[in-house]
This record gives sequence, structure tokens and C-alpha cells, in this order.
Amino acid sequence: MFINSKENEKIKYTKSLLKSKNRNKEKKFIIEGYRILTLAIECRVKINYVFVNEDFENKEEHRNFIAKLNNLNIKVYKTTNKIFEDFTDTKNTQGIIAVVDFIDKNNTISTDDNFILVLDRIQDPGNMGTIIRTADACGVDRIILIKGCVDIYNPKVIRSTMGSIFDMNLVYLTEEEAINTLRENNFNIVSSYLNTNNFYNDIKYKHKTALVIGNEANGISENIISNSDTLVKIPIYGKAESLNAGISSAILMYEIKKHLI
Amino acid sequence: MFINSKENEKIKYTKSLLKSKNRNKEKKFIIEGYRILTLAIECRVKINYVFVNEDFENKEEHRNFIAKLNNLNIKVYKTTNKIFEDFTDTKNTQGIIAVVDFIDKNNTISTDDNFILVLDRIQDPGNMGTIIRTADACGVDRIILIKGCVDIYNPKVIRSTMGSIFDMNLVYLTEEEAINTLRENNFNIVSSYLNTNNFYNDIKYKHKTALVIGNEANGISENIISNSDTLVKIPIYGKAESLNAGISSAILMYEIKKHLI
Repeated sequence: MFINSKENEKIKYTKSLLKSKNRNKEKKFIIEGYRILTLAIECRVKINYVFVNEDFENKEEHRNFIAKLNNLNIKVYKTTNKIFEDFTDTKNTQGIIAVVDFIDKNNTISTDDNFILVLDRIQDPGNMGTIIRTADACGVDRIILIKGCVDIYNPKVIRSTMGSIFDMNLVYLTEEEAINTLRENNFNIVSSYLNTNNFYNDIKYKHKTALVIGNEANGISENIISNSDTLVKIPIYGKAESLNAGISSAILMYEIKKHLI
Repeated sequence: MFINSKENEKIKYTKSLLKSKNRNKEKKFIIEGYRILTLAIECRVKINYVFVNEDFENKEEHRNFIAKLNNLNIKVYKTTNKIFEDFTDTKNTQGIIAVVDFIDKNNTISTDDNFILVLDRIQDPGNMGTIIRTADACGVDRIILIKGCVDIYNPKVIRSTMGSIFDMNLVYLTEEEAINTLRENNFNIVSSYLNTNNFYNDIKYKHKTALVIGNEANGISENIISNSDTLVKIPIYGKAESLNAGISSAILMYEIKKHLI
């Protein structure tokens, strides 16, 4: 079905999902691009409908993809390139988005979990997405998102995850709930912290490790720091003041992983 | 001096430096924000002039900073918040930019260098800036930028370096020049590559290591791969297809650094 009016209800509804408030009301979000949509289908995510722009069907590969969507009974709408631009903040859009259901919310960890990542008020969408992608690559079993993290359904987060959003177990907890559940499950809480003399590569990490990464500007809350078993820092050899939160979490995750396999 | 016209020559000249072509002609670029400007002064970068917006002087700390700039005989212009917006692509600007001279170009490495990073056509400005920042933190002695990398004076690169742009030795070489100079100086060329069985953490890295990181989509050129001493990959345990280039270079840099100290 071709839609060429900005006033169309489907267009307006889809655009409304760019706002966090509306996403939370509708429990739906937008994913953009060919690869992430393919992954969403593989991961059996509930896809409500798809929008493509006029240019999308110029490629044979893309026409085949639309045929596949039709076979799966997924409704595909087409709109003008101009109207489509309103769905995305990327400059080089692939011309395809989908509206999908929120991922099931979970608020417990599993007794099988061995490596958990805890994010304490990570605010930058690019960092959040990259951290989810890296945690997936590194075989982290679960990410605990402490209240105050950026909305994971923010389009920039989704894009930076490169699809790993559908493969990662996410749990939403308050700070107290996170500490309690990690304690009850015998996790060692390892926090990234600048005011310590422990270098990250001198530590022997144990099975059942929970790595905590803090807010970009303010670090980890005092309460979590005082409940940590181990504080670690990454050495800085040059004049840089610090590392980006995505970078430091990646270095720590991959170091810890070596001890857990 | 207060300027409130968009047609003013200083305004037009400053805005022109947002384009790569004009930066290369004038050999000048824009840096934004309080911290990076402070670092530029520390690193004795030639600062041509500074622009602030109307709001900048509301804070006492900022007024003191302007007094400091005056003492250093650095010309400070003031303009409207509206006109200032054209100098920056950040939403939450601090209201201060400076126009500074290009960093001296260098095309040789030093016999003292022990750890060199080679970037082969890194294209994403955020990745480039983050990699420079991480390399600085990790104590990399020098970065070789192979022809085809994104312009390092792109405002997004500069911002992501968080000031490390002024602390890092950068060298611009062609692929052939890079291979030759690394060979002549007895460097081991270690390339990040997916089609190898060598995991990065099983390798004993030697003094005089040059780590090569490739283009985000296409990796490292065949020529460099065939001239490498060691190919390494980072294991992927989950469903993620790959790691972001900034992330993988950070994991590799910090692993190699352990062997070089």
C-alpha cells in the first residue's frame, strides 16, 4: 500500500514512536535497516508492520526481502522518500523500518548466569548500544540496567546494538534490588573505579562475576561502590584523562571473560 | 568585540572552516569546548582567536577563563547564541570555540617508538576520535594514518578525541610507505583479521609492535595483510557478527600494552 500524505494516521502513529513517552505507552519501537530486521525475524520478534521508501525496491535483493515479508504475513507500506526521512535520523537510510513490540521485560536473573554486566545510569545512546553489542559478542549472560539508564528503545541505541538488542537478556532493577539479587546468587561484584590501586589485569576473576560500569560523568553510585567485592581500574599511560565508557567496559569484559571459560 | 551580523567576515570565515576543503586551504580548524581549549593552551597549540556566545560569560569560571585568554593575547569575539549555533553541530554547546592551526605534519617515525598503531581507512569520525583518545590513554607512541582515513580535523573527530589530538604523534603515510618504514625499523606488524585461527590473547607480543586496524566495512587491505607478521582475532561468543572498530582496537591495544611494559 502506497501512502503519500503526511497526515495519514499510519504515518503519524509511526512518527509518534520516535518519542520515548509514546513508545512506553504503546510498548512498541522502531527498528531501522535490513540487517536488524532480518535478525528480528530470526529472533521471532513480533513485527507489527514495515515501511519502505520509494527507492528501496530498486534492488532485486530488496524486492526478494519484501516477498519474504509478505510470505510471513507482515504488512508492508510504501511512502515517499521525503516522508520516510521523518522516520529516521540517519543521513544514509537504507529505506526500511519496522515497528516492533517491546522485548519482554524480565526482572530476575537465572541461577545459570555466570557473567553479568550491570549498567549504572549509562546516559549516552551510542555508548549504551555499543555496550550491548560488545556484551553480546563477549558472551555476557545478562545485563542489569539500573534505573536511570538511557531508554534502550531510543533509535540511536537500537542502531548501535547492530541487532544484539534481540540476543541479550536485559533486566531492569533498582540499585537495591540489583545488589540484593547479586548477593543472593553469590556473585562477586567488580566495579570499575578510578580511586583504587587495583589494576584490572592483576585480578583473578572468579566464576559468577558481575561487572559494574558507571555513568559517563559521575561513575558508579557510592552505594554500589561500598557493596562491591573488588574495585578495578584500567591504567592510563598518556595524557588522556579517562576512557570512554563503551571502551572501558569492553576492555574489562574481555579481560574477565578470559577467567570464566 | 561583539558581532551580531551573519554577514560579518569573521563569522563567515569561521563557518567556512566546517568544510574540509577550506580547512586544508587555510591549515586551520575549529575546536569546541572549555576542556579541549585548556589542553590546547597547555600543549602550546597556536590559537588564532576564540568565539563565545552570549551565555558563556554567565559563569564566573568562564569569565576568569576569558581573562586568562586576554592575558595570553588571544583575541576573544562574542556573538549571539543564534549565530554561534552555526559553528557547532552539538546540541548542548558550552558556547566557546577556537580557531587553531593544523598540528605539524610529520612523515617519519622515531627509532624510540615501541608501540605504533596503524589505521587503514578508518571512516567513521566518532571511531577515529575514540581510537585516538584510547591510543593516548594506552601509551601508544605514534599513530600512522594511511591515506583514506577520515579527516582528523572533522569536528566530530576532534570532539571524540577529548583533547588527545594534541597529545598524540600522528604520521600520514601511504600503504607502501607505512609497510617499508615499519620493516626498516624492525617492527612486528600485527593485523586484526577475522579469517585467522590466532586468538589475540594467545600471542606473545614483542617489543616494537605495530597494530593495524582496518576499515569498518572492508577491514585491512590485502597488501597489508600479506605483509603482516601476525594475524589476530578477538573471539565472538554470542550472536553479534563483529565488534565496533573502536572497541576492537581498544581490546587489542590494551592486550599488547601488557607485553610491552
